[in-house]
Amino acid sequence: MFSCWLSRLYWALSKPTGRTKPLIWGSLSRSLVLSSQRRIPELSSFVARTNTCGELRSSHLGQEVTLCGWIQYRRQNIFLVLRDFNGLVQVVIPQDESAASVKKILCEAPVESVVQVSGIVISRPPGQENPVSHLETKMPTGEIEIKVKTAKLLNSCKKLPFEIKDFLKKTEALRLQYRYLDLRSSQMQYNLRLRSQMVMKMREYLCNLHGFVDVETPTLFKRTPGGAKEFVIPSREPGKFYSLPQSPQQFKQLLMVGGLDRYFQVARCYRDEGSRPDRQPEFTQIDIEMSFVDQTGIQSLIEGLVQYSWPNDKDPVVVPFPSMTFAEALAGYGTDKPDTRFGMKIVDISDVFRNTEVRFLQDALSKPQGTVKAICIPEGAKYLKRKDIESIRKSAADRFKQEVLPVFLKASRNWNSPVGKLIMEEQGLQLIRLLEVQEEDVVLLTAGEREKAEENPKELESAHHPFTAPHPSDVHLLYTEPQKVRSQHYDLVLNGSEIGGGSIRIHDAELQRYILATILKEDVKLLSHLLQALDCGAPPHGGIALGLDRLMCLITGAPSIRDVIAFPKSFRGHDLMSNAPDSIPPEELKPYHIQVSWPTDPEAEKSSLNHPCHPES
Amino acid sequence: MFSCWLSRLYWALSKPTGRTKPLIWGSLSRSLVLSSQRRIPELSSFVARTNTCGELRSSHLGQEVTLCGWIQYRRQNIFLVLRDFNGLVQVVIPQDESAASVKKILCEAPVESVVQVSGIVISRPPGQENPVSHLETKMPTGEIEIKVKTAKLLNSCKKLPFEIKDFLKKTEALRLQYRYLDLRSSQMQYNLRLRSQMVMKMREYLCNLHGFVDVETPTLFKRTPGGAKEFVIPSREPGKFYSLPQSPQQFKQLLMVGGLDRYFQVARCYRDEGSRPDRQPEFTQIDIEMSFVDQTGIQSLIEGLVQYSWPNDKDPVVVPFPSMTFAEALAGYGTDKPDTRFGMKIVDISDVFRNTEVRFLQDALSKPQGTVKAICIPEGAKYLKRKDIESIRKSAADRFKQEVLPVFLKASRNWNSPVGKLIMEEQGLQLIRLLEVQEEDVVLLTAGEREKAEENPKELESAHHPFTAPHPSDVHLLYTEPQKVRSQHYDLVLNGSEIGGGSIRIHDAELQRYILATILKEDVKLLSHLLQALDCGAPPHGGIALGLDRLMCLITGAPSIRDVIAFPKSFRGHDLMSNAPDSIPPEELKPYHIQVSWPTDPEAEKSSLNHPCHPES
Repeated sequence: MFSCWLSRLYWALSKPTGRTKPLIWGSLSRSLVLSSQRRIPELSSFVARTNTCGELRSSHLGQEVTLCGWIQYRRQNIFLVLRDFNGLVQVVIPQDESAASVKKILCEAPVESVVQVSGIVISRPPGQENPVSHLETKMPTGEIEIKVKTAKLLNSCKKLPFEIKDFLKKTEALRLQYRYLDLRSSQMQYNLRLRSQMVMKMREYLCNLHGFVDVETPTLFKRTPGGAKEFVIPSREPGKFYSLPQSPQQFKQLLMVGGLDRYFQVARCYRDEGSRPDRQPEFTQIDIEMSFVDQTGIQSLIEGLVQYSWPNDKDPVVVPFPSMTFAEALAGYGTDKPDTRFGMKIVDISDVFRNTEVRFLQDALSKPQGTVKAICIPEGAKYLKRKDIESIRKSAADRFKQEVLPVFLKASRNWNSPVGKLIMEEQGLQLIRLLEVQEEDVVLLTAGEREKAEENPKELESAHHPFTAPHPSDVHLLYTEPQKVRSQHYDLVLNGSEIGGGSIRIHDAELQRYILATILKEDVKLLSHLLQALDCGAPPHGGIALGLDRLMCLITGAPSIRDVIAFPKSFRGHDLMSNAPDSIPPEELKPYHIQVSWPTDPEAEKSSLNHPCHPES
Repeated sequence: MFSCWLSRLYWALSKPTGRTKPLIWGSLSRSLVLSSQRRIPELSSFVARTNTCGELRSSHLGQEVTLCGWIQYRRQNIFLVLRDFNGLVQVVIPQDESAASVKKILCEAPVESVVQVSGIVISRPPGQENPVSHLETKMPTGEIEIKVKTAKLLNSCKKLPFEIKDFLKKTEALRLQYRYLDLRSSQMQYNLRLRSQMVMKMREYLCNLHGFVDVETPTLFKRTPGGAKEFVIPSREPGKFYSLPQSPQQFKQLLMVGGLDRYFQVARCYRDEGSRPDRQPEFTQIDIEMSFVDQTGIQSLIEGLVQYSWPNDKDPVVVPFPSMTFAEALAGYGTDKPDTRFGMKIVDISDVFRNTEVRFLQDALSKPQGTVKAICIPEGAKYLKRKDIESIRKSAADRFKQEVLPVFLKASRNWNSPVGKLIMEEQGLQLIRLLEVQEEDVVLLTAGEREKAEENPKELESAHHPFTAPHPSDVHLLYTEPQKVRSQHYDLVLNGSEIGGGSIRIHDAELQRYILATILKEDVKLLSHLLQALDCGAPPHGGIALGLDRLMCLITGAPSIRDVIAFPKSFRGHDLMSNAPDSIPPEELKPYHIQVSWPTDPEAEKSSLNHPCHPES
């Protein structure tokens, strides 16, 4: 019940290719004019400084500047490196008697104290440009330094659990506990600023270029059918609860019924999955819905959106994105979210072995759904050791009860593969042709029966969600063999991660009611407002949602989505800084007509005690 | 403990003044260049139509167009008016035999059905331009009509609880129940689109012009000290709850400690106040925080922000906004959010009556804090009837135990005011001068004692919130007479409504701890993370939050904030469309270790039964 739009943007994250950005759409080229004329933001408007630390260059020589920042470190009471979000600058501590008070302030303030200094931008003496030897990268302000006239201690740093520069070496739990210090790192500053900029560009594209309307939808909602994983919020009416929705799905469809035509929202969504690594109980999606659109329209919109908002310091994105059906993805990669950077497509080589003497291939092919498949590992004979192959074979045997055989067709080494000898020359030539085998490649070969769908399944559930429209060619099957119905659903995949998914929706009330009640056996009463709405002149519509946290994670190359979120929860759902969730006095629960059911089961109690808030992870 | 920044923007909402927009800031003039070069958004990209219904003009004559929209109404099976979000257009139903199928579709589809038509834009016959007589405003597409070639019924409207054009006449409860139909009204379309556009312009100003970083902060947080009115969310750990914060206050301050420098967020906030008219349990604020800024900086930023984002179809905003202290506002208007459009400032006229013979004035002035005050109602003698004055006097007497006397100094009528006779000629002349009395004005006069603060109050609470920095001149009073300490707090007021408020924050951990623990007697443990953060090199910082819902309400002139929110809750906190909050099966509460405490008190039960979900309001 899927068709699948899978896209490889991998080159954008791999090495530069020298390709230039092809300007394809009117809308895109116009927008580039717009952004090229946009001036650099004023970073020092409204505040006490004249400049940021990181922006000063030789072009500022002789200027009188006022800077505010943190003391990064001090060298022999002569130099001080001042830091703000924009970078580092070297400040010369005055040594003459008349500036004793300035010297005192700058020499006595502990590291990470906040100071304001005023002075003149001067050249560094010849040979001392960019002398900050412990910094790995070149210091962009390395040609200048500040000759200080006045200094003010704005706030003294009293306690510091550890040095900021060591932060990334600390455990993640410690970084989360002192998140306000972790945020001072250049990596977190980069991640959060890039996120803000990308979202801003997405908004420009949607709102200013294509007339989308940013509509805020409620998060205090009611539970959705099958809506486990939804947080509940007690109301002041006994027994009545709001639920925090997992997405604005119903609201965005209702907006289409309301004639909003083009909706988007950077939407906060909630999902209570208990302890799950690399998931967050609250997350953000770029939520989009359009009327009078088909799958192609949504795909073009998203291609334009991704291209327009793509960071300038990354390789440009080329559109259109490659696309494949769910069936093609499964056949070629064995997953609906392939990482196509690796190549190594799965090839059906059953026909080569119709008359094989290899026993387990014979066995497999004698079954009705039997197939033999292979992948070719480029230069595998060069890079893989025997123990690597053995580990692949063992993992296939242990986890999937599947035999995997290495075949060396053009390799100098062979490891005496027993099957190799049983493959006839003609078969070998066919394999070389089918798998495009090059020198030193290794072919991995396996055989078995295709998994097949149950013929008469008792219970069906939506592969995506119950509002997804069936594929036009399969609508008739809904009433006979619903398990065979493909849908108008599409995913967007980057580097093997699903970063978006959407569908054309059902706009016919009868069809929606049939799918909910008869096929899915859901309680339609919970959705009566939506069914009523579809009967009141609902336009055909469709949409998509992009997972912003994961997208930013892939673009920045961060190891975890927690690195692209300002204040993330731990994998157990705790805020390690503030210690949320926390106990609440019983009298504060009273207005909500709830009380805590303390577990009496000692095991449960024990397991709850095993979840202390600090430390964790 | 307040200083107050109060601003009158009233002229922007009243009649056009013919004044032109004064370009004051570099940033503003630059931004105007930017927007003048912005092209109109493409409203028909990616979809089945070529144009929107509302955009067609004589310049489109002869063009072949495809339109998608709702059937607004039909006239004698000859004309059909098609509607989309952008307006109405007249479609000519073909009458010739060859187009019988098209005619059938367009004549048989019920009103509010969704159709797609293709055809040619033609001129209306002479004399028939804009003939849509029942429409109050001129039809912008009135010079053209569509000669249809093909038509497709996209969705038939089966049930409609009432006609869309009658919607605004229906009760609000019915409009909320069928919100997806109410959204089709031109007023709701205008309100939601203007809201989206204004927020977009605010983002451009903050992000693109001034380098603010849009940071999303968590909504699953822990309770704040004194944090009643916070919704609670049970977690999967027994007895542990998240809270939905009323604002990102702590997070935005922690972002400043983290060196983010300039933060903003269009932040969803939550407040559980039970039943309150014109309040919403979830609402949106433009949340801003800056490092190294003072009150003047924040005010300039906001003036620029409001001016930049102000709708083009409203009178322009002039900056700087007038400003007054809390004391001035109370003295001049008797409130901290005066509606200065009405003028009529309160004037202290005690000195005029030092030697009066009027008894109640004598009495008042003999007391230590005694004063006589007056307001002058322009042309009151012309517009107010005797019963109006009597009603004012009665209301003052009933509600405030205050005598109010009308005085006619230059009025042709006099109603034989008894006091009038007791006012001596010289006093009358003084009053005319002090109150700038014109012909036909009425002066209302009253007397009493000024309210005074308690000398030794036992309990103090923050006028704003406990993170607000004291006024520099009053810091020393914190340790002696804390009730006299003014703060660095400011409000933004439009037409008598508070639309924003903010402050310079405390960045000194010791001062913050003293105020929390010693003055406010709060549990500092709940805020230990913030106090720790202030000790780790917190920069001086301040911010503001604008109430977006109320601002949009004032700008659109909507009668309620529910008219600028897509899916608002009723004043009892119900979603009348979906019926949230709703019951939840007990097994879905189990993972959260809570159970419902059903009220046993029959009164409570009765009152809960008195809150049915439909109908309401």
